[in-house]
Amino acid sequence: MRQGFPEVVFCQGKTVDQVVKIVQNLAQCNNNILASRATPEMFQAVKEIVPDAQYIEIAKMIVVEREKKKSGTERFILVMTAGTSDMPVAEEAAVTAEVMGNSVRRVYDVGVAGIHRLLAQHEILQAANVIIVVAGMEGALASVVGGMVAKPVIAVPTSVGYGANFGGLSALLSMLNSCAAGVAVVNIDNGFGAGRLASIINQMR
Amino acid sequence: MRQGFPEVVFCQGKTVDQVVKIVQNLAQCNNNILASRATPEMFQAVKEIVPDAQYIEIAKMIVVEREKKKSGTERFILVMTAGTSDMPVAEEAAVTAEVMGNSVRRVYDVGVAGIHRLLAQHEILQAANVIIVVAGMEGALASVVGGMVAKPVIAVPTSVGYGANFGGLSALLSMLNSCAAGVAVVNIDNGFGAGRLASIINQMR
Amino acid sequence: MRQGFPEVVFCQGKTVDQVVKIVQNLAQCNNNILASRATPEMFQAVKEIVPDAQYIEIAKMIVVEREKKKSGTERFILVMTAGTSDMPVAEEAAVTAEVMGNSVRRVYDVGVAGIHRLLAQHEILQAANVIIVVAGMEGALASVVGGMVAKPVIAVPTSVGYGANFGGLSALLSMLNSCAAGVAVVNIDNGFGAGRLASIINQMR
Amino acid sequence: MRQGFPEVVFCQGKTVDQVVKIVQNLAQCNNNILASRATPEMFQAVKEIVPDAQYIEIAKMIVVEREKKKSGTERFILVMTAGTSDMPVAEEAAVTAEVMGNSVRRVYDVGVAGIHRLLAQHEILQAANVIIVVAGMEGALASVVGGMVAKPVIAVPTSVGYGANFGGLSALLSMLNSCAAGVAVVNIDNGFGAGRLASIINQMR
Amino acid sequence: MRQGFPEVVFCQGKTVDQVVKIVQNLAQCNNNILASRATPEMFQAVKEIVPDAQYIEIAKMIVVEREKKKSGTERFILVMTAGTSDMPVAEEAAVTAEVMGNSVRRVYDVGVAGIHRLLAQHEILQAANVIIVVAGMEGALASVVGGMVAKPVIAVPTSVGYGANFGGLSALLSMLNSCAAGVAVVNIDNGFGAGRLASIINQMR
Amino acid sequence: MRQGFPEVVFCQGKTVDQVVKIVQNLAQCNNNILASRATPEMFQAVKEIVPDAQYIEIAKMIVVEREKKKSGTERFILVMTAGTSDMPVAEEAAVTAEVMGNSVRRVYDVGVAGIHRLLAQHEILQAANVIIVVAGMEGALASVVGGMVAKPVIAVPTSVGYGANFGGLSALLSMLNSCAAGVAVVNIDNGFGAGRLASIINQMR
Amino acid sequence: MRQGFPEVVFCQGKTVDQVVKIVQNLAQCNNNILASRATPEMFQAVKEIVPDAQYIEIAKMIVVEREKKKSGTERFILVMTAGTSDMPVAEEAAVTAEVMGNSVRRVYDVGVAGIHRLLAQHEILQAANVIIVVAGMEGALASVVGGMVAKPVIAVPTSVGYGANFGGLSALLSMLNSCAAGVAVVNIDNGFGAGRLASIINQMR
Amino acid sequence: MRQGFPEVVFCQGKTVDQVVKIVQNLAQCNNNILASRATPEMFQAVKEIVPDAQYIEIAKMIVVEREKKKSGTERFILVMTAGTSDMPVAEEAAVTAEVMGNSVRRVYDVGVAGIHRLLAQHEILQAANVIIVVAGMEGALASVVGGMVAKPVIAVPTSVGYGANFGGLSALLSMLNSCAAGVAVVNIDNGFGAGRLASIINQMR
Ligand SMILES: Nc1ncnc2c1ncn2[C@@H]1O[C@H](COP(=O)(O)O)[C@@H](O)[C@H]1O
Ligand SMILES: Nc1ncnc2c1ncn2[C@@H]1O[C@H](COP(=O)(O)O)[C@@H](O)[C@H]1O
Ligand SMILES: Nc1ncnc2c1ncn2[C@@H]1O[C@H](COP(=O)(O)O)[C@@H](O)[C@H]1O
Ligand SMILES: Nc1ncnc2c1ncn2[C@@H]1O[C@H](COP(=O)(O)O)[C@@H](O)[C@H]1O
Ligand SMILES: [Mg+2]
Ligand SMILES: [Mg+2]
Ligand SMILES: [Mg+2]
Ligand SMILES: [Mg+2]
Ligand SMILES: [Mg+2]
Ligand SMILES: [Mg+2]
Ligand SMILES: [Mg+2]
Ligand SMILES: [Mg+2]
Repeated sequence: MRQGFPEVVFCQGKTVDQVVKIVQNLAQCNNNILASRATPEMFQAVKEIVPDAQYIEIAKMIVVEREKKKSGTERFILVMTAGTSDMPVAEEAAVTAEVMGNSVRRVYDVGVAGIHRLLAQHEILQAANVIIVVAGMEGALASVVGGMVAKPVIAVPTSVGYGANFGGLSALLSMLNSCAAGVAVVNIDNGFGAGRLASIINQMR
Repeated sequence: MRQGFPEVVFCQGKTVDQVVKIVQNLAQCNNNILASRATPEMFQAVKEIVPDAQYIEIAKMIVVEREKKKSGTERFILVMTAGTSDMPVAEEAAVTAEVMGNSVRRVYDVGVAGIHRLLAQHEILQAANVIIVVAGMEGALASVVGGMVAKPVIAVPTSVGYGANFGGLSALLSMLNSCAAGVAVVNIDNGFGAGRLASIINQMR
Repeated sequence: MRQGFPEVVFCQGKTVDQVVKIVQNLAQCNNNILASRATPEMFQAVKEIVPDAQYIEIAKMIVVEREKKKSGTERFILVMTAGTSDMPVAEEAAVTAEVMGNSVRRVYDVGVAGIHRLLAQHEILQAANVIIVVAGMEGALASVVGGMVAKPVIAVPTSVGYGANFGGLSALLSMLNSCAAGVAVVNIDNGFGAGRLASIINQMR
Repeated sequence: MRQGFPEVVFCQGKTVDQVVKIVQNLAQCNNNILASRATPEMFQAVKEIVPDAQYIEIAKMIVVEREKKKSGTERFILVMTAGTSDMPVAEEAAVTAEVMGNSVRRVYDVGVAGIHRLLAQHEILQAANVIIVVAGMEGALASVVGGMVAKPVIAVPTSVGYGANFGGLSALLSMLNSCAAGVAVVNIDNGFGAGRLASIINQMR
Repeated sequence: MRQGFPEVVFCQGKTVDQVVKIVQNLAQCNNNILASRATPEMFQAVKEIVPDAQYIEIAKMIVVEREKKKSGTERFILVMTAGTSDMPVAEEAAVTAEVMGNSVRRVYDVGVAGIHRLLAQHEILQAANVIIVVAGMEGALASVVGGMVAKPVIAVPTSVGYGANFGGLSALLSMLNSCAAGVAVVNIDNGFGAGRLASIINQMR
Repeated sequence: MRQGFPEVVFCQGKTVDQVVKIVQNLAQCNNNILASRATPEMFQAVKEIVPDAQYIEIAKMIVVEREKKKSGTERFILVMTAGTSDMPVAEEAAVTAEVMGNSVRRVYDVGVAGIHRLLAQHEILQAANVIIVVAGMEGALASVVGGMVAKPVIAVPTSVGYGANFGGLSALLSMLNSCAAGVAVVNIDNGFGAGRLASIINQMR
Repeated sequence: MRQGFPEVVFCQGKTVDQVVKIVQNLAQCNNNILASRATPEMFQAVKEIVPDAQYIEIAKMIVVEREKKKSGTERFILVMTAGTSDMPVAEEAAVTAEVMGNSVRRVYDVGVAGIHRLLAQHEILQAANVIIVVAGMEGALASVVGGMVAKPVIAVPTSVGYGANFGGLSALLSMLNSCAAGVAVVNIDNGFGAGRLASIINQMR
Repeated sequence: MRQGFPEVVFCQGKTVDQVVKIVQNLAQCNNNILASRATPEMFQAVKEIVPDAQYIEIAKMIVVEREKKKSGTERFILVMTAGTSDMPVAEEAAVTAEVMGNSVRRVYDVGVAGIHRLLAQHEILQAANVIIVVAGMEGALASVVGGMVAKPVIAVPTSVGYGANFGGLSALLSMLNSCAAGVAVVNIDNGFGAGRLASIINQMR
């Protein structure tokens, strides 16, 4: 295990049995465990073996956190979403970053179609150390935020939308073509990856 | 010819000879002619036959305008671009609308990566009757503008960009997935189509 | 809220609980509310809290309409479909426009494979102020209609079809490449967006 | 060689030398030869060896026709185009069919954005035995024609257009999704294939 | 109704009620009716209203055939498939052609990976008047058959396969790029369209 | 260097200077060198430094072969093409295999649209040890060959074709979806990769 | 049947009845049968007719193996996976190769994000005769393995992943573009095809 | 101008005149200027006006650097490439980071097909503060590097390759699907964006 980070299990595409067995093994020699894309059924089965496991439903994550990492609040990661439907992905990012010992603040539902909502967040944007922008549909939030700050912006396209969003492709292409410098992109719906990278950057000294 | 509009020739994919012949025929019974996607060579050849033809280089358009349509300035079409590279497409739209008898105003290079540039245009945005938004790369300008006004916004994706913009696809998908209502989209680089539609809307009573 | 328009909720991808809570909040300070892509279950739950809510099943819309907007009939929006399967999308557009205070007329199942059906509608086409064309498969109706009138045509591609329609892509590309000027396109199945834009145009003075 | 048809050479992607050598060989034992996608240079080189070769420039075809096939005119193939830019592909089809012994009639520039132009051709449409429809952009002509007749319609999408036509993809998908039965499609710009198939059908007894 | 053909209903995407109502209406003034993509439930509901309706399960078709069209056997349509999984689409084509008054013969499961199976059918291939080739996966059968005969070949790509077949795209592109002349293509899984076109060609005189 | 193989330089995207410098370096400590995708200019520049370099024009390859590897003829690699335009890619494969010490035999222009041409090669097909199939357009040759033999078939899709071949995509998808087992695929136009893999397999003991 | 190989049934897209009937027929004249993509239900039904049939659940394969093929262990096929989720596809390959008389060894979960896991397998990589690499997501394992050995590497992209993996497309493109020579690719999730080809190569003499 | 960074001009798609005018304006009030995607002609024209401008040919960048930013070497950015053809993009990133005041070290041509080349760089990988990975073809280098370190990895896909790399799409999808956490991606060939983001991260305190 890399120093200071919990072990991570990606549950999607695994059976309940497989998840239980993997978590059980990890629990024997790790203080902290994170399981992403976990169903409630997986959690129930894990809890019987690892009673101190917790479930964050909206993020679909199982967390075992025996050794709490302390995190100052002055250096925080800001997680933003364009809409409320992007929240599950945003929470996957936020929980990941928190369990990895970061202070996280959330600003949700500030999509660009109501630019005043975003502008009202100017202060917290300037105070943040790293920013995660989660957006589906046309994913324009990443460009606007990227232009407002001179800090690392990690853009997470989501599959939220319909029709010509083609499962998140529209937001993905938007973010890759962002005219704002300082923006990098992770896979569609990959909240975990964004949280992990934000944590690495936030903990650089 | 539909009442009040010039005849329009789409020159791309035609030979110089074909263009000359078509314009020559039209010039015999029309007062106003518009030719889009015309090369300087085409213009030279046309000018020899129709001496009062004019060439707007940046828009790549040949204009014959014998009967000037009067246009009040109180009802104007606003043409906006995200970057300076989007100007040729924007001018195709603007010239089209002007020749069709509309008053046009231009606000260029106000892309969302510098949102203050856009916000500084608040007044003209509210004053406009119809808005044409021309943008390449991530095409986010259409969503932000669409959210600031309650008027028809015609979005023109451009092929400006590189890499994962795939010839304008990124801006096109962005604009189609705009979370702002009141936005409709025309083909990539289709300045003419946007200008024509804006003119129709602007002249409704 | 923008003057004169109802608040709009996009229900797809939200839980019943989320929809109820949002509608409940809106109902406290708004006279008119529109919820699109709502399931019957969502409606049942909303109705318990907001008893004057109504459900238009084919459009999958919940409507709360306390302050009826008056709409003259001389300026009407025409909603057309190519086939009967395009009706749900067309009704989303029509209901949206009606609730926003427009007079709407419907001409359904006039696809281009039986061109006489369309030609028989010549009169109403000429009388309309704005036209919404809803079509799946090859989406050719937008081009034919666009060529018959000199008014704004809003084209809505639908995902109706199979095989190489690729979830609405065929109709979308058709409409974007329309050889008729005056046509603009919204997202696949986006009846709401078309209705909203048509309303804005129809209410211009 | 199949009885009654000329030998056919596809020149694209071949060198002038290769084309000359192939035509020379064929000319020794065939009366009729057809070479498609041939450049003027190829024709010059071929002509020195096969002096009775002819070049149809717009179709980019070299024809050697020593044994004229007689063709009645009562059973004719109708070749239609939506625009003038589709003519090279249409002529490839028409010349192919003629050299194979069919009577061919042409109706060009009758795209659906001016439906009256098409309706004016009603008589010849009903008189034709097989119809080839050549169209780019949104390719809607195939559907409208297919709905007007109960005869075989061969649709040829062309790469004419720009932006979201993606090299002919828009017209191809349109034609494949045609809501008119009786329509089948060949490759983008494949005039030869359409002409050959039309000839086979036209000569069935 | 076009002379001599039954009325056709496309059931996919319609409710049971809608199908029943349409068939009921047609049954009052037509002798023959064909409904494609019909579920067993649709058939049960239709049968209660139109007792002489029949269901061909593998083709998912409802047939009402009161006035049997006579068809000689000397001029027959040959329907071929590459695999057994292509049979539902092939039967949609075959039943369509039969109900429209054609003699049909079937040769199934002769895919090119066992070329001897195809070569063994040489005689029937030469005897056929029109050939429908139904194939998924790489769709190579159309090219091989197209090269063996000088008759119209209608290729139907199917969505049979997995992985990089992308829902029938692989077979579709194969068939469109066929190096054999005389082959034209209909939409993925469109057995009806192929049967209808084959019938038109087969009944030409 | 892996035992027994020449060093390989991929010239595409390199400058003449870069290629010369790389070859010069390699020539000092290697007996055999292979450079693929080399232009005639690159060869001229290389020849001045390495006078015993040879150029195989059709394969666009520079070969330095000081230590001839002996190759029995009983175990040979068969390189086949569907058309003559596929020859450059086929020769890249063939030359690669020969320089790597294999006996190679060529059977060109045996595409499936004339299946008798392929069947006439039955004997050599059965005698070969490994088979490379090079084909563009619909790429059907790989499936037919794969079904005729129980040996490794390496399929090379080529970009030969036009329209819906999309730069080799049609042949690539065809070959990946081959219904014949025993077929594997390399990148579009990757003759070198196919030759190298065939050599590895052919030299297994 | 080709000498020495079992008959193979591809069950996906077939009904239980169809599978039973096919297996029953084969069982009458074959000693060994392999059925891939079989559901447990299919196995239960087959077992009633062919009692000596066995089911390998993870590979979803039914095996009838009456005449065990002997396989030395010195020449073995190595099957590798990047993650545990790739195991079903890997087992399809492994079981196929075993039933065809090969010795198979497995090295699972050695993806490149932990390169030490892969390097620890150096010895078995060098000892293997043919290598099958099964990987989803970015599919990078094939390139790394291909660079470590001079033996045939058969790469199987899997549909494991989410978002921009587009059902296996990311791994497929990665593997086709592998910068390591000696790698060839089969269809997404096509474990059977890889096992079959590996067997052919492994049994060459 | 954001504190401490030079003004940046993106020259692609601009005329020589436009570039000269923009640089001239910037030079009047800025000490440092960076122009990317500049041709040698653009540089010549700029140099006449701004004599202290320099041209870094391989990176295609014009640099005006009057106020040298001091950069310690202990905190450095590591720029890596898979092949030599990726160098232009890598140098765009490196020069950008250097001009923005960072210490940069380069490790080129360490693609994964020769994994030992990469492993030999273990020490510098661990010493780096931020890592930029530039790779075309299958882009696997990002995943392997991402797994070796716990620092921010910025992946830049390049358009280097041919065939199924589709202009950089293969590397892009690979990198987005990286199984290593801590990796984020910028647009194809976007060296500037990567250099800018790396600079921001490297200068965080
Ligand atoms: N939501 C996620 N998206 C992408 N990767 C993830 C996610 N959650 C966990 N992972 C990665 O998946 C790996 C676990 O894979 P596994 O061995 O299959 O459990 C961990 O190393 C994580 O880096
Ligand atoms: N399987 C099918 N695929 C495509 N079109 C069909 C199919 N079956 C029927 N149709 C067509 O669909 C039309 C009936 O559409 P509808 O009016 O919606 O019942 C008929 O004109 C047929 O040409
Ligand atoms: N036509 C080709 N296609 C793909 N790879 C090639 C080709 N020719 C050579 N190569 C590979 O490119 C590598 C040489 O790359 P480089 O170091 O850039 O010269 C060699 O290891 C070969 O495996
Ligand atoms: N290679 C590049 N790729 C993407 N963006 C760039 C590149 N070089 C410069 N830029 C951005 O382009 C903007 C300059 O655009 P312009 O105003 O058109 O000169 C700057 O703000 C940079 O952030
Ligand atoms: Mg920024
Ligand atoms: Mg608005
Ligand atoms: Mg119009
Ligand atoms: Mg018809
Ligand atoms: Mg034929
Ligand atoms: Mg085989
Ligand atoms: Mg290797
Ligand atoms: Mg890492």
